[in-house]
Amino acid sequence: MKKYSQMSAEELLNEKNALQEKFEQVKAEGLKLDMSRGKPSTEQLNLSMGMMDILNSSSELVSDGVDCRNYGVLCGIHDAKKLLADMIEVPIDNVIIYGNSSLNVMYDTISRSYTHGVLGNTPWCKLDKVKFLCPVPGYDRHFAITEFFGIEMINVPMLPTGPDMDMVEDLVSKDESIKGIWCVPKYSNPQGITYSDETVYRFANLKPAAKDFRIYWDNAYGVHHLYDYKQDYLVEILDACTKAGNPDIVYKFCSTSKISFPGSGVAAIAASDRNIEEIKNQLTFQTIGHDKLNQLRHVRFFKDMDGVVEHMRKHANILRPKFEMVCNTLKNELGGLDLGSWIEPKGGYFISFDSLEGCAKAIVAKCKEAGITMTGAGATYPYGKDPKDSNIRIAPSYPTLPELKKAMEVFTLCVKLVSIDKFINK
Amino acid sequence: MKKYSQMSAEELLNEKNALQEKFEQVKAEGLKLDMSRGKPSTEQLNLSMGMMDILNSSSELVSDGVDCRNYGVLCGIHDAKKLLADMIEVPIDNVIIYGNSSLNVMYDTISRSYTHGVLGNTPWCKLDKVKFLCPVPGYDRHFAITEFFGIEMINVPMLPTGPDMDMVEDLVSKDESIKGIWCVPKYSNPQGITYSDETVYRFANLKPAAKDFRIYWDNAYGVHHLYDYKQDYLVEILDACTKAGNPDIVYKFCSTSKISFPGSGVAAIAASDRNIEEIKNQLTFQTIGHDKLNQLRHVRFFKDMDGVVEHMRKHANILRPKFEMVCNTLKNELGGLDLGSWIEPKGGYFISFDSLEGCAKAIVAKCKEAGITMTGAGATYPYGKDPKDSNIRIAPSYPTLPELKKAMEVFTLCVKLVSIDKFINK
Repeated sequence: MKKYSQMSAEELLNEKNALQEKFEQVKAEGLKLDMSRGKPSTEQLNLSMGMMDILNSSSELVSDGVDCRNYGVLCGIHDAKKLLADMIEVPIDNVIIYGNSSLNVMYDTISRSYTHGVLGNTPWCKLDKVKFLCPVPGYDRHFAITEFFGIEMINVPMLPTGPDMDMVEDLVSKDESIKGIWCVPKYSNPQGITYSDETVYRFANLKPAAKDFRIYWDNAYGVHHLYDYKQDYLVEILDACTKAGNPDIVYKFCSTSKISFPGSGVAAIAASDRNIEEIKNQLTFQTIGHDKLNQLRHVRFFKDMDGVVEHMRKHANILRPKFEMVCNTLKNELGGLDLGSWIEPKGGYFISFDSLEGCAKAIVAKCKEAGITMTGAGATYPYGKDPKDSNIRIAPSYPTLPELKKAMEVFTLCVKLVSIDKFINK
Repeated sequence: MKKYSQMSAEELLNEKNALQEKFEQVKAEGLKLDMSRGKPSTEQLNLSMGMMDILNSSSELVSDGVDCRNYGVLCGIHDAKKLLADMIEVPIDNVIIYGNSSLNVMYDTISRSYTHGVLGNTPWCKLDKVKFLCPVPGYDRHFAITEFFGIEMINVPMLPTGPDMDMVEDLVSKDESIKGIWCVPKYSNPQGITYSDETVYRFANLKPAAKDFRIYWDNAYGVHHLYDYKQDYLVEILDACTKAGNPDIVYKFCSTSKISFPGSGVAAIAASDRNIEEIKNQLTFQTIGHDKLNQLRHVRFFKDMDGVVEHMRKHANILRPKFEMVCNTLKNELGGLDLGSWIEPKGGYFISFDSLEGCAKAIVAKCKEAGITMTGAGATYPYGKDPKDSNIRIAPSYPTLPELKKAMEVFTLCVKLVSIDKFINK
């Protein structure tokens, strides 16, 4: 197909009319499809149904001598700590198990720093200004937490190797009010980028002006590969930090939300001895302990990391065709047209589409008009403001394959329809 | 038996020697018994084993159209809200379901007030001074939360009708820095006192100087009766506050921790429309939703409030003999001796013993020497400081009946042994 940039004024008008006609037909179909959130499909949920049977009234509900039904055990039962420590690749003593939501753990981590400070440093609520670095595009719920606490967010561009580390190093070294950076280091949300070895080592060797600067390392998709034979590899950061003499600089977060059941998983934080000690101390005031029966359920169901890896293969088998459908439709419909760019991820939950400047909001609105719900344009940026109005997050997990095919046809149609005006109005 | 106050010096010495001899014998037994925490016994845990079977892989895991396995539903599934709303006696829309711990809900409530303020008032972290009223004796974990946030605690004596309301009214009306009061209004921890109707109405009609003053109404033992035929009645406070034109003044907390499984229950907050709106808004940043499968498990197991009441009868059947054992031993061993006082509770988890002034710490230490672990003396007061050093909390739920009998014999022996010095040294 001819690029719009090479079309004459007449050709552009003809093409626009054709697209418009197609769009009216699609609208008439009254579609109702949702590609807005990274929500596992029913088929994926069914993979974990064994968890509903793994414990019953005849089960021994004891782990490491602890009756999992009763009060107690602040940091999680031993076997659950082992499982999640293996998953997050740290020693067992550097893990604390929480409830069902890693978002909650991250919120609580920010909240604790705000109310009580980090390792003896001034609580953030007593400071005039606290800032965070936000690699963009990124995860809207990260940005929402920092915004809720009145923390000023600074955009850092994502490169194919991860955040722009020249900029990160420069900023943190000279501004003591910068207290953290949000990272989704593997199969990032929304681009599916995995930080390069060099990026991780540069993180581990950061020399921030603020002693209480922390890397908020949300390894949400650590085991969420799409392929067996081509997987991204991420250097384990806590070990890298320790070796760099910087053990306290990172908090790692993970959960089983997209492994077992999204609403009933198990979340964890991992960090250095000193950080874990501090978090434990605070946790003593917050709870007597999280749900140990659910921890036990996970331990008995997955057994060990091999069990998790095997289980993730089943997820991949369901997700892979969906990701391929999205990428193929983008390629078939938009390939070579210079109307936008995207990365084909090897894992995670999203595909990120960058439209021509100033088109994202209009594309998402057009999709909505045709019954396709996308993540709001701008959501991948702090304050919901995408300065170029170009990034759109595509979440392919929840719709069925036929729904997804339809939705992507509509999406690419909307991309063309919105983009063409840029050339007509030139 | 003769009172120590009526004994001659010689009689006192003889008695002390006899007690001392008995104590040495007990010590030699090498006991190891724990009456320190309000922890349900294994027998009680077994009452809820049906919960382990109520959901399985053949169950319909859908409630009100929601797949309970997936993400979503911030405030709890409809049926769980209904169950807990009935339990806490408020309309369903005035309840938010949380995770497994009401302590966590209370911590988060204080933390939110500290970081973001209450209904538009200044966040507490921006104030020079924040104070809380603490009815004493009370619950150590309440006091621990307020202490952790640097909140100054003011003791308010408990009367047989609840906190001294003359003092409460007086203090809150003239000190704007007083932002709250901790209450366990039914079968209070540790005394087992239920607030009188008048006390509740006076709470509902408080006119605090601080607009963001709240009553932290921890109804932990709302359905935890020991008897069918003699139960305490507590006026429902949210309704009382609403009728008094004071709907926003109270936060109610509850959980199923001592109904189903202590580590895997469901907790909730209840409050006015405006308060609930504010809490929901904050919760949006903290989580995508709590564990809905566990909510569903509770709904299917208990069905409704009748199911809860029936279930609590089974708990009572196990707990009642233990409470009676403690009270009878106190009566038999210490009755008429004027060595201390106690209340026989009709519900809850504790019996509170008030020794002669200055004896509590020594009694608890003596018990420890003989292998009996009691809650630390002073724990029932803010900062762990019981000004009279007299209150000791007895938690009879966890030990077996024979263990409890033994433990109480040792306890009363220690009370006598420590008290007698007061008379000898006179």
